[in-house]
Amino acid sequence: MGITRVGFIGLGIMGKPMALNLLEAGFALTVYSRSRAPVDSLVARGATAAPSPRAVAEASELVVTMVTDSQAVEDVVLGTRGIAEGAHAGLIVADMSTISPSTTTRVAAALAARGVSMLDAPVSGGETGAREGTLTIMVGGDARLFEASLPVFKAMGRKVVHMGATGSGQLAKLANQILVACNMAGVCECLNFAARAGLDAEKLIDSLSAGAASSWSLTNLGPKVARRDFAPGFKIKLLQKDLGYVLSSAEEVDAGLPATSLVHGLYGRLVEEGLGELGTQALVQAVEALSRGRDGQGGPRRAAPRE
Amino acid sequence: MGITRVGFIGLGIMGKPMALNLLEAGFALTVYSRSRAPVDSLVARGATAAPSPRAVAEASELVVTMVTDSQAVEDVVLGTRGIAEGAHAGLIVADMSTISPSTTTRVAAALAARGVSMLDAPVSGGETGAREGTLTIMVGGDARLFEASLPVFKAMGRKVVHMGATGSGQLAKLANQILVACNMAGVCECLNFAARAGLDAEKLIDSLSAGAASSWSLTNLGPKVARRDFAPGFKIKLLQKDLGYVLSSAEEVDAGLPATSLVHGLYGRLVEEGLGELGTQALVQAVEALSRGRDGQGGPRRAAPRE
Repeated sequence: MGITRVGFIGLGIMGKPMALNLLEAGFALTVYSRSRAPVDSLVARGATAAPSPRAVAEASELVVTMVTDSQAVEDVVLGTRGIAEGAHAGLIVADMSTISPSTTTRVAAALAARGVSMLDAPVSGGETGAREGTLTIMVGGDARLFEASLPVFKAMGRKVVHMGATGSGQLAKLANQILVACNMAGVCECLNFAARAGLDAEKLIDSLSAGAASSWSLTNLGPKVARRDFAPGFKIKLLQKDLGYVLSSAEEVDAGLPATSLVHGLYGRLVEEGLGELGTQALVQAVEALSRGRDGQGGPRRAAPRE
Repeated sequence: MGITRVGFIGLGIMGKPMALNLLEAGFALTVYSRSRAPVDSLVARGATAAPSPRAVAEASELVVTMVTDSQAVEDVVLGTRGIAEGAHAGLIVADMSTISPSTTTRVAAALAARGVSMLDAPVSGGETGAREGTLTIMVGGDARLFEASLPVFKAMGRKVVHMGATGSGQLAKLANQILVACNMAGVCECLNFAARAGLDAEKLIDSLSAGAASSWSLTNLGPKVARRDFAPGFKIKLLQKDLGYVLSSAEEVDAGLPATSLVHGLYGRLVEEGLGELGTQALVQAVEALSRGRDGQGGPRRAAPRE
C-alpha cells in the first residue's frame, strides 16, 4: 500500500504550488501555514486545514515541511504543538526546506527517538519549477524510505535523486548554491566589463551562450543584468541565508571556498545597503561599486583589487 | 567576386584543423608555420607552403593569423619578412589569435598606414570546435570587411558574430574568459566541498546539471575533476595568459573583477608549481590546497579565508 495521506506545512511562494501539485496528483492533503490566504485557497481546491503541525502529523502518513530556515524547521517539528507531538507509527517527515545539514541531523535524531523517520529533500528550480512540477529534488535518508516516498516527490519534481544518508540532500543543495553563486559572479563581472568596454550585451550573450562560457545563469539572468531588471526570481537574502549554511558546513568539513566566500561578502554589502529583496542578479551592483564611485559621487576610481 | 586565395599563419593545435577546414571548403590556401610537420601535412592536402609571412601575404587576398600571444602577432604582422612587407591593395588580415585588445588596435593602425585592413576574430570552442568547424568566432572591425570575409569564417565556425569596431572581437573573447574562469571556480569549489562532505560526485553532477546551477563547465569538466583527470583540453598557461589580458583591459576601462582576479591568483599558484601544462580543471588542486595541508604534510588546517 502506497502513501495516500500527505501533510503540508509552509504554503509560501514555493510551498503553495507544490501542495497544489500534490492535490492534483490525487493525494489526500492536510495543510498548515501561518498565513490564512494560501490555506483557504488550498481548502477551496480540496485540502483539509489543520490547526497545528501536530494535527497535520496526526492526520498524515507523510508530512512535507517547506519553511524558511533551520530555526523554522526546528519550530514546526520539535516546537510546541509541533510534528513530533503528533508522532505515530510509520510517520515520515520530508523536510524540503533548504537548511543547515547539521540541523537536519539533529532534527532527524530527535524524531528517530520518537519513532518518526525523516528525509531531507531540498529542491532547486525555483517558483517556476514548483508551479510546473519540474523541481529537482535531492534526497538524503534511508533508501527504503526514499523508495516509499518517491510517488509523493514525483508529484512535485521531475528529477528526484537519492543522494545518500540523512543530511546528504541538504549537502547537495548547498553544493548547488556554490555553483549558483560563482556562476552569478561570472555573469556580473563579464557584463559589467562588457558594458564598460562598450560591447553590445545582447550580441555578447548570444555569442557566449553557444560555447564553453555558457551557463543557466548567463542565459536566464544575463539578459536581466543587461537591462537592469532586478526583480527577484530568487532573492538575495535567501541565497545569502543558504551561503551562510554553505560556509559553516564547509568549515566543518574543512573545504576551501575562496570564490564562494568572496561572493558571500559582496552579497553581504548589498544586504547591508537594504537590497536583500532584489533578485540575485543585482550582484552586478556590488561589482559596479568596485569599479567606480557610484553616482559620480567619488569613491575609488581604480581597477579591481588583485589577488 | 568573393575571396578565393587565403593565407594561414600558425598551424598549431588550433590552426592546423582550421586550415584543413579552409582547404575542404575549396579555398586556395598558402601556409606558413614555424614547425615543419604541419606545413608538410597541409601541403599533402593541397596547400602551398610559403617561406615567410610576407610571402603568404603576397599570395593571398585574406591572411589568417592564429598564433600564441600579442608578441607573436606583432612579429608575424609587423616584423622582418612579416605580413606588412607583403602589403598589396585589398589585403585583409584576420587575426584569430586571442591577444590584448590594445595590441589589436595598435597593429590594425600600423596595417592601415600601409593600406591593409584588419579584423580581430578570436574564437571559442577549443580543439574540438576547430576540428569540427563549430567554433564561435567573435569579430571586430569594419562591417563591410566582415561581410566580405564571412565565407572564410563560415568554413571554420558555426556561429560568427560581428561585435563592433576593431578590438571588440578581442573584448568579447576576454568577456568569454571571465565566465570560463568563474564557472570553473564554481565547479572546483562545489566538487571539492562535495568530496569532503562525502557526496557521490557522479550523482551530484547529474542532479545539478538539470537546473539553475548548470554550466558547460559542470557538464564537460566536472566529471574530469571528479575522476582527477587533469589532461588538458585547454591548458592553464593559456587561460592564464588570457586572464592577464582580461585584467589589464579591465584596468583600462576601470571594471572591477573581484572573482576573476581571485581565480587568476589561484591559477598563478599552480603555474608557479609547474602545473601550467595541465587542463584548466586542475584548478581544483588550488582549492584543495586551501582546504588542508597537502599529502598530509601539514599546512593550514583551517577553513577557507572569509571576505
